[in-house]
Amino acid sequence: MDPIETLNALYGAMPPVAAMQVRAVRLDSGVLHLHAPLAANVNDKGCAFGGSLAGVMTLAGWGLLNLELAGAGHAQAEIYVADSQLRYLKPLYADLEVEARLAPESDLQAFLRTFSERGRARAMIQARVRDPDGATVAELTGRFAAFRPPGSE
Amino acid sequence: MDPIETLNALYGAMPPVAAMQVRAVRLDSGVLHLHAPLAANVNDKGCAFGGSLAGVMTLAGWGLLNLELAGAGHAQAEIYVADSQLRYLKPLYADLEVEARLAPESDLQAFLRTFSERGRARAMIQARVRDPDGATVAELTGRFAAFRPPGSE
Repeated sequence: MDPIETLNALYGAMPPVAAMQVRAVRLDSGVLHLHAPLAANVNDKGCAFGGSLAGVMTLAGWGLLNLELAGAGHAQAEIYVADSQLRYLKPLYADLEVEARLAPESDLQAFLRTFSERGRARAMIQARVRDPDGATVAELTGRFAAFRPPGSE
Repeated sequence: MDPIETLNALYGAMPPVAAMQVRAVRLDSGVLHLHAPLAANVNDKGCAFGGSLAGVMTLAGWGLLNLELAGAGHAQAEIYVADSQLRYLKPLYADLEVEARLAPESDLQAFLRTFSERGRARAMIQARVRDPDGATVAELTGRFAAFRPPGSE
């Protein structure tokens, strides 16, 4: 299966994520793009719910590491978010367009090498949600940890 | 209507919140308690989804300020989360029991007085999710802003 569709199958299997109708769109130059419709993520004021913004940005970071680990042969890796800092910059009255990439202080090859050698690794992720004009409406910096489950690989 | 049920009506009107099956339980000594079932908030590993934990803690903070403002006669206040810091401490394999309170550096009477005088005010909130043993599994510190909508009151 296409890696993006494999990721979408994982997303769809999580009830709260299915409810948010989150879909991975593409992985392009190290940036994972997700989409979620406003209607499934709207608050009482008709704009995107802060909890949904937090959710899609967390999922984008999780999905990016999932794809990169799977691409390096570690499809069974378990990935957790350890901590995150979020800023909400402006209300969003449109669908949620989300992107996640490694933070400048994290290096993909070093992350994959550490995981391969030790069965665990950490990475910093930057994620954002943009409005139709391209402006950032919310951003997240998060630390994620990946583990090789006992008995796998 | 009972203030807690009014808050639950607001929660239930937001599609992503309805999907998480979040319910306010009680406001007790300045602490708002929410509950959400694990089944509606579970991830691929059978424990609580990080995005749901972020969502319920954000909702708890929002709900606490909503209740306190409504109790002071400002039922039309609009409340937004401005930024937040989250820590995920351990996996949760049980329903989400959430609580939110004002952070020590924020004072409820000062917040309400500022809102009343200026039509806007900010407060810091602390929220956490506990497991059945009472241990904290995730915590949030967030800055919230409340506004009086133009033309109201």
